[in-house]
Amino acid sequence: MFDETLQKIAENLMNSEDIVLLPHINADGDALGAALALGLALTGMGKQVDILLEEEVPSNLDFLPGQELIKKTPGKVYTVAVNIDNGDISRLGKREPLFRSAGIRLSIDHHATNRVEAHYSYVNTKAAATGEIVYDLIKNYFKRNLNKDIAICLYTAIVTDTGGFRYTNTTPETLIICADLMRYEIDFPYVIKKVFDMISYTKLYLMKKTINSLTLLENGKLAISYLTYEDIKNYDVKNDDYEGLVNIGRNLEGVEVSVFLREDSEGNFRGNLRSNDYVDVSEIAEKFNGGGHKRAAGFNSTGPREKIIEKLIEIIIPKIRREA
Amino acid sequence: MFDETLQKIAENLMNSEDIVLLPHINADGDALGAALALGLALTGMGKQVDILLEEEVPSNLDFLPGQELIKKTPGKVYTVAVNIDNGDISRLGKREPLFRSAGIRLSIDHHATNRVEAHYSYVNTKAAATGEIVYDLIKNYFKRNLNKDIAICLYTAIVTDTGGFRYTNTTPETLIICADLMRYEIDFPYVIKKVFDMISYTKLYLMKKTINSLTLLENGKLAISYLTYEDIKNYDVKNDDYEGLVNIGRNLEGVEVSVFLREDSEGNFRGNLRSNDYVDVSEIAEKFNGGGHKRAAGFNSTGPREKIIEKLIEIIIPKIRREA
Repeated sequence: MFDETLQKIAENLMNSEDIVLLPHINADGDALGAALALGLALTGMGKQVDILLEEEVPSNLDFLPGQELIKKTPGKVYTVAVNIDNGDISRLGKREPLFRSAGIRLSIDHHATNRVEAHYSYVNTKAAATGEIVYDLIKNYFKRNLNKDIAICLYTAIVTDTGGFRYTNTTPETLIICADLMRYEIDFPYVIKKVFDMISYTKLYLMKKTINSLTLLENGKLAISYLTYEDIKNYDVKNDDYEGLVNIGRNLEGVEVSVFLREDSEGNFRGNLRSNDYVDVSEIAEKFNGGGHKRAAGFNSTGPREKIIEKLIEIIIPKIRREA
Repeated sequence: MFDETLQKIAENLMNSEDIVLLPHINADGDALGAALALGLALTGMGKQVDILLEEEVPSNLDFLPGQELIKKTPGKVYTVAVNIDNGDISRLGKREPLFRSAGIRLSIDHHATNRVEAHYSYVNTKAAATGEIVYDLIKNYFKRNLNKDIAICLYTAIVTDTGGFRYTNTTPETLIICADLMRYEIDFPYVIKKVFDMISYTKLYLMKKTINSLTLLENGKLAISYLTYEDIKNYDVKNDDYEGLVNIGRNLEGVEVSVFLREDSEGNFRGNLRSNDYVDVSEIAEKFNGGGHKRAAGFNSTGPREKIIEKLIEIIIPKIRREA
């Protein structure tokens, strides 16, 4: 579907010689993959392109082609700057002034919350990934062919933001684009392995502790697991490392509700709640002044842990029984 | 692409009134999903269809529509019998005579090893799943529309056999078919959760024991984990439960070679080997009279465990160093 803003963005890129691409800080597979793909396409059109990052490329994305375009410090003031996969300009970090000082500011993104100001800002919330927008831009506006390197970057972008085609943002269009990318004979199983399967030492340790703490109640319908401050205080735990730990309980056969508690600092707990089929866990979270959705919710609470768990059990068991 | 055998299969199905569909024993998501989809399509065309199974539908597939067609005992001798997703007729189990006694025997499958004899046998080894063949059959030979229930069954079939679009058998055509199936507004995240994420108590226990046994050597490049006969003897462990345990080590950051040993019976070990980037693990397996591929191999050996591990370390470490 033709879009006038995207056409203007394409024209501005095609008409300029020096361009800087700016993905959001802590660039993930979509931000980095989209930037590299766009960078490779523009380089192929004879443009001078820098991709400016503040961090190292994460090790799970170290296979991405086009990294020779990545710079840590700006060479100059650029004619054109492109904000990529980023809905909030403060998430450019130290590179924000560089964006503001560029002669022409462009922005492409898919976040509904986007409030970036630019000469031309294209936000497509139906795109599962900014990679989909870059695909559209290259094929339908630049009218250029892709190549294998670009296809690897875009495939990485799309699988990252769709959880490997598992999230609800995945659309028929997403799969049709990836079908086209596969025609460039990319090693897609390798991409998926790198993006999703690699885990850190810290994560494995947290998984082990979580599994060891797992208790089942109510005929195996309620799973409770936790990490104490003792467990984590000597580790450099990032927020990402906690991701998915509540699913260990949720994915166990027969479980309806999974509770995962972590003690972020002495006596201060974060609770994650998940359900599989019928219990509305947002109602449970609300009793702790938290919130969320029917199948995924969360809350903060002060300990002791035993008290929180006692209260959780009291609230959850009748729900499991009533609605079973 | 038009195929004459598939056309004959379609004609025979369209011209008969009573049909039995026979997926292989221990039907997985592809065998069952393909059978249910075909059953639903034929029922929609006014045919009398039974799907005959020897086992219960596994709990991770209990959401599949069309299960009212499933029977445990044959009602009669059928005019037409269809062997589904099965390359070896003995894998029909007790239902083999029923297939042989049918007036018209048809077979659809995607296994390269297929040696089923039937009046019309269609084997498409390029299809990632038999579900893709059934999709082709319904749309292009029956020339019928799909519906949401059929789409759920076919999507389940395809994600099962492609590991959620991760295996090398996934093709552009696979994604294009699934893009079409998504248009029926199926809850594909739920399908994927049911097919892949649910784990058994036994599996979680084995994961926990495996993680607890994990040792890293050679600056974290070699991961060794194991299960002893003591660990497993009191559990009803199925071969499936061991699947993926070697990947716990393989997926850990920095690991090149992962070894997983399990003691199936007192003193008898099965070894699994995986590598990520450069070590040829088939060469390692060969030293134990085993074999496999560069990145995945296995062997059998008698214990004691310490001796096997000692020998493995001796062989693997120089390979990690030489090829690094």
